Amino acid sequence: MAQKIDIKKKVLSENERLAAEIRQQLKERQIATLNFVSSPGSGKTSLLEKTLHALKDELRIGLIAGDVQTENDANRLVNAGGKMVRPLVTGGSCHLDARMISRVLPEMDLEQLDLLFIENVGNLVCPSGYDLGEDMKVVLISTTEGDDKPLKYPSMFRRSSVMVINKIDLLSTSDFSVERVKQNALSINANLRIFETSCRSGTGLDLWYDWLQSLVKTEKVHRD
Amino acid sequence: MAQKIDIKKKVLSENERLAAEIRQQLKERQIATLNFVSSPGSGKTSLLEKTLHALKDELRIGLIAGDVQTENDANRLVNAGGKMVRPLVTGGSCHLDARMISRVLPEMDLEQLDLLFIENVGNLVCPSGYDLGEDMKVVLISTTEGDDKPLKYPSMFRRSSVMVINKIDLLSTSDFSVERVKQNALSINANLRIFETSCRSGTGLDLWYDWLQSLVKTEKVHRD
Repeated sequence: MAQKIDIKKKVLSENERLAAEIRQQLKERQIATLNFVSSPGSGKTSLLEKTLHALKDELRIGLIAGDVQTENDANRLVNAGGKMVRPLVTGGSCHLDARMISRVLPEMDLEQLDLLFIENVGNLVCPSGYDLGEDMKVVLISTTEGDDKPLKYPSMFRRSSVMVINKIDLLSTSDFSVERVKQNALSINANLRIFETSCRSGTGLDLWYDWLQSLVKTEKVHRD
Repeated sequence: MAQKIDIKKKVLSENERLAAEIRQQLKERQIATLNFVSSPGSGKTSLLEKTLHALKDELRIGLIAGDVQTENDANRLVNAGGKMVRPLVTGGSCHLDARMISRVLPEMDLEQLDLLFIENVGNLVCPSGYDLGEDMKVVLISTTEGDDKPLKYPSMFRRSSVMVINKIDLLSTSDFSVERVKQNALSINANLRIFETSCRSGTGLDLWYDWLQSLVKTEKVHRD
């Protein structure tokens, strides 16, 4: 068992080394990078579709769409107007890692990007342990999932900088409480920035888009 | 990397050995055992609550409630009338394994059980690789998640014997198609037994309860 732990440590430290390289590469080009994590079905792809479509004339957005199998998500994102979308099929792995990202990045023209989205595998546990070189993790939780999820999967909420409460249009269909989920999430991570959105009704999306634009502006100002 | 693969193989074969022991132990006592798997928030705990409550006078049901953190689910299940509920907090691990089950089983009076439910960690990837000594895996998918999930997470649907399509009362709130999810799931695993349920409206639960009862009868007949 000690041997297993040593190997795991080695894999994680190799991942951190690669992630640091990726981060530097993206920083040099002033690309703000977000790693989207959530359960399967929380609406990561829908939020990204809406965002690509809404901001396509204002920001140059690249997207790496991770999936265990199929390129369904990548295809949806191209259809939504994504100009630089790359599928990343893990072939069984439950999370993306920095090695996978470093293989895909050379296929993207980074000089042409303001913003890079990475859509992780739908999994509220494993992706939390793998730094991909992102600026921050964005965790989605949908109102159909239960408001105790931050307490049950604390690592992901602790390591995320932003929480998007999605499917806010479905609030009336369950006893999910927005106040309770916020309280639970903030008890794990008091610094979480929180958005409430519905990709179906459009609620809250303008605030989300505004924040992304300000993020890109800040990135440019910091580097100039 | 070869070393990493060897270690993983060793861990899995040790898991299989333990799972075989558990299976034999449960078979000797004619206990039908189901391992419930799904994304976080698909409704595993709700379905188990309903089931414990509905069948409490007819079947003697034991339950091991797995979670990454918190004993919330176990507490809900005790409140629903579960008489032999054991929490199993993994403390970070993304799945249950046979070793964890073999630690909890001695705390349960197996002579008093007809049926054992194991609620796995909410994760549609990792639990698929770990046999817990169950008779079968039951995979839940909720109608708020997207009907392409069987294609995107094929391993779990391939290794499950039963698929429960849950939150069927929320069908009208999305473009989820029951026909499409069935077609996708059956293309991965043609032998899946399928139920359609809503824990909120009660739709489909009677068929589910009937099947559980027949499962217990079959288990007894096979052993007598």
